[in-house]
Amino acid sequence: MGRTADYSKEVCSVAGALSVVGDPWTLLILRDAFSNIRRFDDWQARLGVARNVLAARLKSLVAHGVMETRLYSERPPRREYVLTPKGRDLLPVLLTLKDWGDKHIYAEAGAPAKFTHKCGEELTPRIVCDACGEAVKSGDLRAAGRAAGPTVGELLPSLSDA
Amino acid sequence: MGRTADYSKEVCSVAGALSVVGDPWTLLILRDAFSNIRRFDDWQARLGVARNVLAARLKSLVAHGVMETRLYSERPPRREYVLTPKGRDLLPVLLTLKDWGDKHIYAEAGAPAKFTHKCGEELTPRIVCDACGEAVKSGDLRAAGRAAGPTVGELLPSLSDA
Repeated sequence: MGRTADYSKEVCSVAGALSVVGDPWTLLILRDAFSNIRRFDDWQARLGVARNVLAARLKSLVAHGVMETRLYSERPPRREYVLTPKGRDLLPVLLTLKDWGDKHIYAEAGAPAKFTHKCGEELTPRIVCDACGEAVKSGDLRAAGRAAGPTVGELLPSLSDA
Repeated sequence: MGRTADYSKEVCSVAGALSVVGDPWTLLILRDAFSNIRRFDDWQARLGVARNVLAARLKSLVAHGVMETRLYSERPPRREYVLTPKGRDLLPVLLTLKDWGDKHIYAEAGAPAKFTHKCGEELTPRIVCDACGEAVKSGDLRAAGRAAGPTVGELLPSLSDA
């Protein structure tokens, strides 16, 4: 089960991120990982995805350091999959996708899942500039140079997920 | 060129969003649209994507209301593609993907693209709770109910991008 797009010639962090998490099912696997799903059969039951596809995705996420395995049974040996710090850093990606889907797909039906922030209020995520704290809009951004950096293919190890 | 994953049975805003923007190349097409790429040949030259794939992706984005076409030449008739407000609302998705790629793929090489926010500082996007303004971390969230809402397949019109 290979990737369906080759971004390896791009010099771009978005393309790099998608090379790791852009495969079909991968972001839904990660969504469930944030809900403490850790075991193969639980993902399989939730997603209804083919077992070979799920196995390939988990293997790739481990190879990329987004998840790691832990042995939870020795006899028979059974592993579960947990997010690494690198994986947990994907929370903003999932929250912004959720927010867009809430607004533009589930607008009338109502958001199917809600979260309460530790402050006690229902979470509405907002993306702000870390320097000034203001919400970021596309008209407020100016390109500030583009480096002739390495391509995605040069940076990411060639990890077969077949 | 069909989708490679069917999320239509999911009751989930993330799955809904990915049903619109999760196809291979789509998020890179949108990335370039935010950089004012508007014409088929410019995307094709930038991305090196097959023309039939690019045409299918643009058609799907228009069908989903993420982009719209404008006639920029009458003889011969030529259309360009621009983001709608719904499409511009995808900026946070792209910025969070970029930020993760900057941090976890281009960490040593340095971010290949940078933006200056209107405040004058280089943009570092941060995701905060709209209610309290604090940065959002996964440990700070609590599931607050899950509605038995409609599935993605029930909400999204069946839009063939073939």
